[in-house]
Amino acid sequence: MTLILNGRKAQAALKERLVARLAKLNAKPTLAIVQVGAREESNAYIARKKEFGEEIGAGVELVRLSEDATEPEILSVVQRLNTDPQVHGIILQLPIPAHLNKQRLLDAVVLEKDVDGLATGSTFTPATARGVLSLLQFYQIPTEGKKVAVLGRSALVGAPTAKALREAGAIVTVCHSGTKNTKEITRASDIVVVAIGKPKFVGADYFRDDQTQVVVDVGITSLAEEGVVGDVDFEKVKEIVAAISPVPGGVGPMTVGALFENLLSVIY
Amino acid sequence: MTLILNGRKAQAALKERLVARLAKLNAKPTLAIVQVGAREESNAYIARKKEFGEEIGAGVELVRLSEDATEPEILSVVQRLNTDPQVHGIILQLPIPAHLNKQRLLDAVVLEKDVDGLATGSTFTPATARGVLSLLQFYQIPTEGKKVAVLGRSALVGAPTAKALREAGAIVTVCHSGTKNTKEITRASDIVVVAIGKPKFVGADYFRDDQTQVVVDVGITSLAEEGVVGDVDFEKVKEIVAAISPVPGGVGPMTVGALFENLLSVIY
Repeated sequence: MTLILNGRKAQAALKERLVARLAKLNAKPTLAIVQVGAREESNAYIARKKEFGEEIGAGVELVRLSEDATEPEILSVVQRLNTDPQVHGIILQLPIPAHLNKQRLLDAVVLEKDVDGLATGSTFTPATARGVLSLLQFYQIPTEGKKVAVLGRSALVGAPTAKALREAGAIVTVCHSGTKNTKEITRASDIVVVAIGKPKFVGADYFRDDQTQVVVDVGITSLAEEGVVGDVDFEKVKEIVAAISPVPGGVGPMTVGALFENLLSVIY
Repeated sequence: MTLILNGRKAQAALKERLVARLAKLNAKPTLAIVQVGAREESNAYIARKKEFGEEIGAGVELVRLSEDATEPEILSVVQRLNTDPQVHGIILQLPIPAHLNKQRLLDAVVLEKDVDGLATGSTFTPATARGVLSLLQFYQIPTEGKKVAVLGRSALVGAPTAKALREAGAIVTVCHSGTKNTKEITRASDIVVVAIGKPKFVGADYFRDDQTQVVVDVGITSLAEEGVVGDVDFEKVKEIVAAISPVPGGVGPMTVGALFENLLSVIY
């Protein structure tokens, strides 16, 4: 029996902890989301953040700018939020239109409020990395001394996830497009975290056939024919591993929760 | 009775864990240290790393270049170590002479071997941040939901320590030279981590007088009259707090241990 790492269930437990913590705060933590344009997928993600935030009693304020907003316009919004004492966290909903310089806009968020952890020099761990760890912790899957392969080394997901796993005592190898023996490494791993952004790219040949490995799928792609899928070929891989996170309903809900963990860690 | 957070004792426990982990590896983890010049303090730190490494059974190789080594000379050494399969981790011993571009040299270390966590985009947590966490963990001082003030926001120490504490569930405020109400914040904190690099700068007025707070001193300065001291006025502060780490013998030994924790996490 393969264990399905149910992010919705783990999120519910996290929600309870956050509600308890929020009750002890002497301010209502408020997240501001800056959205440029109105991509359908972004709308869906924002709706989930809003819903989660409201359920735990946090404020979520959406500032939506038009698709053709200029960098100075966005910067001026971010700067207003930076100095607004009622706003504790600010995130720029990604992706943003291609005419904008993403890192420059991310870096405009004052470090104290950068709860997405994406500004240069941020002191927050990106929500996805925190989400992966929380999902493993919820299912009491140990990381200390375990071999973990992280597929993908993006600054926003792969790299911070590898770092968080190392801090949790894991022995981590980061694989990327230039890695020659990726399948050899994943087959030798206790835990495989996949964050490459290629739908169903990772098949059964990446794993041993002995139902002992744990797979965490961070990928999320919306396919016209199949809806939302991950980087892992779930149906095939789940037959041969011990545990696997589905997409949707795996890391995604934990990422939303982790964002609010970051937000609550701002209020002193 | 104030609890003294004894880093040497905590390091001994960490050493046992690393020895056990090393016994299971199928390679001898080897750290290369690149030193430019021969500063007395650096020699002392390197000696401690060498000693610790050898005690746990790891290899430590020192490459010492002259004080006036040029950037291309250093880069060529780093590149040789980058591709040497017998070398698993590479650190550039800091500080380096002022004629060199520090970040450019740190960034020359290939990410897979950057066990000091100082290259841009590194997937390792800097040893000091890991050391602070390990010291608290050894003394079973909880961080989950606790208010932590981190004084100093340097990229090498303050910022990564704040991040690691947030990941450990703490509510973190980072104070720096521009923070107006630092003493108000430290007095309201459960744990105060000081990493500002100003000897004995933080006095008793930063703390409550009720022996409930925990102080971790990351500072280390060698004074002609007094020898090595921290950022905290240890003798005065220890009278009014619950626990405090001394300098030397506090965070320092844990930092050495954390460096080898990082090294061992490389070998798959």
